[in-house]
Amino acid sequence: MSTTEQISGASIGRLPLYLRELTELSDKGVATVSSEALAEASGVQSALLRRDLSQFGSYGTRGVGYNVQQLRRAILRIIGGTRVRRVIIVGAGNLGQALVRHAGFADLNFKVVGLVDVAPELVGTEVNGVVVTHPDRMIETIRSTGAELAVVATPASAAQEVVDLALEAGITSVLNMAPVALHVPADVAVRNVDFAQELQILSYHQARRRVVEHA
Amino acid sequence: MSTTEQISGASIGRLPLYLRELTELSDKGVATVSSEALAEASGVQSALLRRDLSQFGSYGTRGVGYNVQQLRRAILRIIGGTRVRRVIIVGAGNLGQALVRHAGFADLNFKVVGLVDVAPELVGTEVNGVVVTHPDRMIETIRSTGAELAVVATPASAAQEVVDLALEAGITSVLNMAPVALHVPADVAVRNVDFAQELQILSYHQARRRVVEHA
Repeated sequence: MSTTEQISGASIGRLPLYLRELTELSDKGVATVSSEALAEASGVQSALLRRDLSQFGSYGTRGVGYNVQQLRRAILRIIGGTRVRRVIIVGAGNLGQALVRHAGFADLNFKVVGLVDVAPELVGTEVNGVVVTHPDRMIETIRSTGAELAVVATPASAAQEVVDLALEAGITSVLNMAPVALHVPADVAVRNVDFAQELQILSYHQARRRVVEHA
Repeated sequence: MSTTEQISGASIGRLPLYLRELTELSDKGVATVSSEALAEASGVQSALLRRDLSQFGSYGTRGVGYNVQQLRRAILRIIGGTRVRRVIIVGAGNLGQALVRHAGFADLNFKVVGLVDVAPELVGTEVNGVVVTHPDRMIETIRSTGAELAVVATPASAAQEVVDLALEAGITSVLNMAPVALHVPADVAVRNVDFAQELQILSYHQARRRVVEHA
């Protein structure tokens, strides 16, 4: 995060959680929500939620709660969700296909415009209306579709090569699901999702739990 | 995290990254590694790595670096990776199937012992040697296999119900990939992976980037 950033990285990470619940409330026609109810539904402590939301102006009225529509629009504006962002997914295995079919992306203004895989039996096929193209054509695909975000769902061994190509084509944000650390210039944003890492963190909790149980 | 915890949650989250690189070095027969090289390969700042590792005793020698084998074993011990942990995956769609086939789990002593789905065409089939069972039999499956960790790869609408069943069967750690906040007792560990949330965080970076570019 640059020093000019007004909102902390951790707060930014929680805004999508609030947005998810606010969208559900909005769909149900709910006009206002208390900080406690929104925090509970989002799985966040209410003091933390109030601190997060106070960073970008208050949309709450004491005794009434937050205006659902206003707060929802404010969060959308901050995370740039008011314009469509085009996404290219690299790797059309089970994980890549799960992502192409992700029901929530379209609601959030993400549009999958490309799906890339090296497997000859996949190239040319369609997944959820998106044609699979070969990595040889990735730069062309990114440029012609105007993709801004790349999702890496390849094996670890292919990830860096794929990302280098994507950056060459102008991608500046990467969601990396390959279990490997990517090396990118400082101005490229990378988020890593590593399933094995998550299981290991849970394993640590399990190991501590045993110690406590047996103490 | 409880107050008796000696190691911070953020540090715990980075240990799997160090472990991944140490395992690779070990496989290559490398005996020692500098903190700078290990940090670079793990995608972590080297000062942060040194602080993380100093929390549980030093395995480094000035001018020589860390002993790869010793440090690897120490991290495995801390995250409980020295014993097999049985995992049940709920949801056998693309995401669940990607997880069952995850190449890295076995190396890390995770064993997928169950796969659960409600779809009649999936129940009874095998994915990577694991038979798909119906949620009606989930409690039985968890108890008979000794599963400790549950991975939720269902649609959001099914997630809470599935988790309630898993907890009833004795599960105490949950990896949640459904885009919904789960409600669990305080002694249950939950890690959330939400692809849409990750894309939104990147979208925030993209939005800021535009502002800077146009400033």
